[in-house]
Parts: sequence; structure tokens; C-alpha cells
Amino acid sequence: MSVFTPVSEEQLQAWLANYTIGTLEHLQGIADGVQNSNFFVTTTLGHYVLTLIESVPRADLPFHLHLMAHLARHGLPVPAPVENRHNEYLGTLNARPAIIVARLGGAADDRPDHKRCTRAGQMLAGLHLAAQSYRRRQANPRDHAWRLACAQRLQAHLNAAERTTLALELDFQARCQYADLPHGAVHADLFRDNVLWQGEHISGVIDFYFAGYDAWLYDLAVMLNDWCLHADGSGALDEDAARALLQGYQQQRPLLATERAALPAMLRTAALRFWLSRLEDKHLPRPGALVSMHDPNAFHRILQHHQQQAPELF
Amino acid sequence: MSVFTPVSEEQLQAWLANYTIGTLEHLQGIADGVQNSNFFVTTTLGHYVLTLIESVPRADLPFHLHLMAHLARHGLPVPAPVENRHNEYLGTLNARPAIIVARLGGAADDRPDHKRCTRAGQMLAGLHLAAQSYRRRQANPRDHAWRLACAQRLQAHLNAAERTTLALELDFQARCQYADLPHGAVHADLFRDNVLWQGEHISGVIDFYFAGYDAWLYDLAVMLNDWCLHADGSGALDEDAARALLQGYQQQRPLLATERAALPAMLRTAALRFWLSRLEDKHLPRPGALVSMHDPNAFHRILQHHQQQAPELF
Repeated sequence: MSVFTPVSEEQLQAWLANYTIGTLEHLQGIADGVQNSNFFVTTTLGHYVLTLIESVPRADLPFHLHLMAHLARHGLPVPAPVENRHNEYLGTLNARPAIIVARLGGAADDRPDHKRCTRAGQMLAGLHLAAQSYRRRQANPRDHAWRLACAQRLQAHLNAAERTTLALELDFQARCQYADLPHGAVHADLFRDNVLWQGEHISGVIDFYFAGYDAWLYDLAVMLNDWCLHADGSGALDEDAARALLQGYQQQRPLLATERAALPAMLRTAALRFWLSRLEDKHLPRPGALVSMHDPNAFHRILQHHQQQAPELF
Repeated sequence: MSVFTPVSEEQLQAWLANYTIGTLEHLQGIADGVQNSNFFVTTTLGHYVLTLIESVPRADLPFHLHLMAHLARHGLPVPAPVENRHNEYLGTLNARPAIIVARLGGAADDRPDHKRCTRAGQMLAGLHLAAQSYRRRQANPRDHAWRLACAQRLQAHLNAAERTTLALELDFQARCQYADLPHGAVHADLFRDNVLWQGEHISGVIDFYFAGYDAWLYDLAVMLNDWCLHADGSGALDEDAARALLQGYQQQRPLLATERAALPAMLRTAALRFWLSRLEDKHLPRPGALVSMHDPNAFHRILQHHQQQAPELF
């Protein structure tokens, strides 16, 4: 259950006076998600989602909210943040930064077939291309500096195998050079549960609170490590699924030779990032966090696999 | 059939390179509507509507497009115009001003019950309140000056009964004073076929190409004359339905005493506007217009009824 901060109907009804979406008809907490407090909200004018931001500094939020608005304006299936009567996205409710977004239809698919992998790749390319005209910049909050610091915090909590994997990876990562790859705004958390489907199209891409400015290839690596894993649980990629996703992406934006060459390393970078954050959620949880825990070991296996062997994707 | 300007798949595919909504998968002309050329467009990224503007001067379009975008940003169920790669809404296709908008679900309801009339009133109030923070101004393109000029153009084409009604009405309208009523951006064409429904909520409010800056009460009068007519075809209002719509509106924005007093006159103003435009479509059609003709006589009867008797609505 991910509602950290409760909201009563009376509180929300009063708060909605800042908006022009009518009066409250229904309010319900959402159990999914592990970072913020989310609620389904129905008013006289329709269906919305209320989010109380628990984990992102308020000063960082304009980058995320304007990115969502920018992508929605460019026709991407991204929930547009709703402006209040003062034409502002960001409000405050129960001492938390709070936003309302349009509620998008559809449902996540935790077993996407190759066709849907292709669609997801097409969507990611559209997202990158649309964000080319987005002017704000903010670092990926889980960038190389964060990964180093997090590894430091975790040292005392790791077993021998984990310490071996981590030492090997930090040594490798210190030599990775991504600066010359194409950069832009990236979602940086495009797991299957952040993509909603209606029929054969994507109806929603949600949860932009890890977005930042980084190599476009990072988004692809994050997706491949989640969407295109082999069903045997070994941590290896299903290379057919991965090629389907890459094909969709490249229909809209062909990768540069430098990007194709860097993908095996970037798969390791992305695996490291999620292994570290899951280890941190396990060993050093935020106070008061009652979140559904993701298993760090899955990403340990993925990272080990990438360390041993680069996939054949092109 | 309302596609005045055809568009081929090849033309559209090339034009879509200006956008980041992927590549074309399906294109289909839309038969509804009488002003512009509309097409359903499906791309790799989803469902959109392409509109080639046939009847609005290009210089007037930014007011309409930014109003739609403003209302969509404020959470109203209005199709957001899609920005191209240069962050612009307005393009050119086949020598016409052209825009892409998000395709909204739902279907129009030509026999809305009282509950839906109340919903529609709530939506209209939300639209007016959201547009309070919209800065652009542009005259209602069918304002008093247009109505006078149109009446002049039509004189030679009217029969005796029509001339009598028109003379009586122009004399009355010359004495109407609306300047002190609350003004703002109004849709000005909120007929039942411009409102889409999904379940008990409005999923779409479309066709903003007659929008302008005018008295809010004008929008209410336009709606009452279409949504709340008595089923006997006499041109009288169904006062229960009208009260349901007004009740919904007033839940969100109570009318001023001056507005309640001015409503009978405004119902005549709104009836005159649509009677005149339908007479013009009949007697002085645009060259090349192959549109489904609306019957002017329906609005002749509505206007005559309002001339004889003011409804009891409060």
C-alpha cells in the first residue's frame, strides 16, 4: 500500500476550490506505486489522479511537471498535469507538494509480447524526439554520482558475492564514457508497470519522478532490462524481444554507431542503478515507508549476466 | 459529407515528419461537421484527429487553439492541439491551416436526459471559470455586428413571415444592453453534437471555431435553445430540462441577478444568431460547400416562441 499521507474528502473538496474541475464525487487511495501517495479522484467534470509527492524535493518538481506537460502537448500519451486557477501545476496539500493529472485509461501488461515491445520502442523514440524541444535541464537523480554514493552507503550491508559484483562493476563504470552519446530528457524508470495499454496502442506513460537529463541510450537500457528478460529468470535478455523493442525505437530514431557500441555497457549501468536502489530500500529504508519491496536479487542476476556476456542485439 | 479538402496517406505521412507522434497507420475522413475538413488519424503512438480549417481566417486561429490548449491544461475534457517539433500548434497542409488534436473517446447524445443536462451545465461553468485565466481576446465572430450585416444580406431572400420576425427582432436587439454582464471566452456553439459522453461524464467538448469573447450568458442561451427544447417541436423550451441545466451551471457559478434578468433576451439573441446563419447557409451558400444543411425553420420557431413569451426558469 503506497498511501503514505492520507487525504480526507473534506480536505480534498476544499483544496479543489483552487481548480476548475468541479466538485468532488469520489476519492480512493491507489495501492500501486512505491514512491508517492496516489488517489483516484472523480469530480463533476471527470476522472483525475491526485499525487502527493513524498520523495522528490519541491525545487526539483518543475522539471518533472513541465516535462510531462510538454510531452502531453506533443501528443504523447502522458498524463498532463492540471493547471489551477492561477495557471500553476504545483500546489500543496497536507504539507506535501501536490498535483492533479488527467486519468488515462488502460492497464499495464507484465508479459508484453514482441509486438508490444516494438510499440514500446516506438513510444520511447517519440518521447525522446518530443523532448528535444524541451528547454529545462536537471540531472538524472540516480546518476553516476548517486550510484557511487549509494554503493558507499551499502558496503557494510552486503554479502561476499554482492561485494564482488559491486567492486567489479564500480571499476568498470569508472571507465565508461557516455558524454558523447546523444542526450536529452529521459524518463529513466520505464518499467512495464509505468506503461498502460488499450488495445494495440499505449494509452499511458506514467511516473516521471525519476526523469532527468541523460543519454537517451540509458532509457533503452532501463527498458531492455525489464521488458526483455528471458523467462528462465537467469537475468539474461530475451534477445528476440530486445531486438523487437530496438526495432520499434529505430523505426523512429536510428541509433548511432556509438550508441550501438555503448549499449552493453549501458545495460550494466542501468542494472547497477536499480540493484543499488533496491538494496537501499531493503537495508536502509526511508522512515515510515510501507512500500511493497522489490527483490534486489533479480537485478543482481541481471548485472552478473551482463558482466559475463554482452547480448547480440544488432 | 464534410471533407472539403482531401488528404492522401502520402501527403499526411510526409506532413507528420513535423510532429513526434510516430508514423501513419490509418487515415479516414469524418462525415460529421459542417465547417472544416476532419480526419481520424491513427499513428504508431495512438489516435488523433486532423482538421483542415476551411472557414476561419488563419490570423484568428491562435485565439481558438490556445483557448483549447488552455482549457485542456485546466483539466477540461477539451481536445488538446498537438504541438509540432517547433512547439507550434498551427501548420499548413494542402494550402489549408491544419492542426492535429488528441482524439477523445465517447459519443454525442441527441436526447440527453435531465441528469445529463445538469452535467452539461456543470461543464459549461467549469469552462467559463477555467477561461478566466485565459489572456487572449477576440470578438465573437457571430456578434451583434455580424448579425446586423447578415440580416441585411438576407433581406431579399426572406418570405413575409420571416421578414416580420426579423424586423421585430432587430428592433428588440437594438435595445439589448449586455455590456455589464460578466464576460469571458465563450464556446458559442455548444450544441449537443459538440459534446461527447462516456458513461455519466462528459469525455469531450469539441469544435471551438466559433469561440470568442462575449457574455458568459450567451453560452447558456445557446445551450438552452438546443439541449432543452420541448419535444413537441413548437420551439418552446422544456422548462424542467432548462432548470436542470441551469442548476448544474449554478452549482459551480451562481448567476448574478442581472444575468437572470437578461436570460430571456439572450435566448432571443442566440436564436437569432443560428436562425440567420442557417438562412445564410440555405440562401447564400459558400462556394463548394457540400455540407449537411440544418433546417432554418427550427430556429425561426424558437425565436418566434421567445418573442411571444419568456420562459419561467428561476
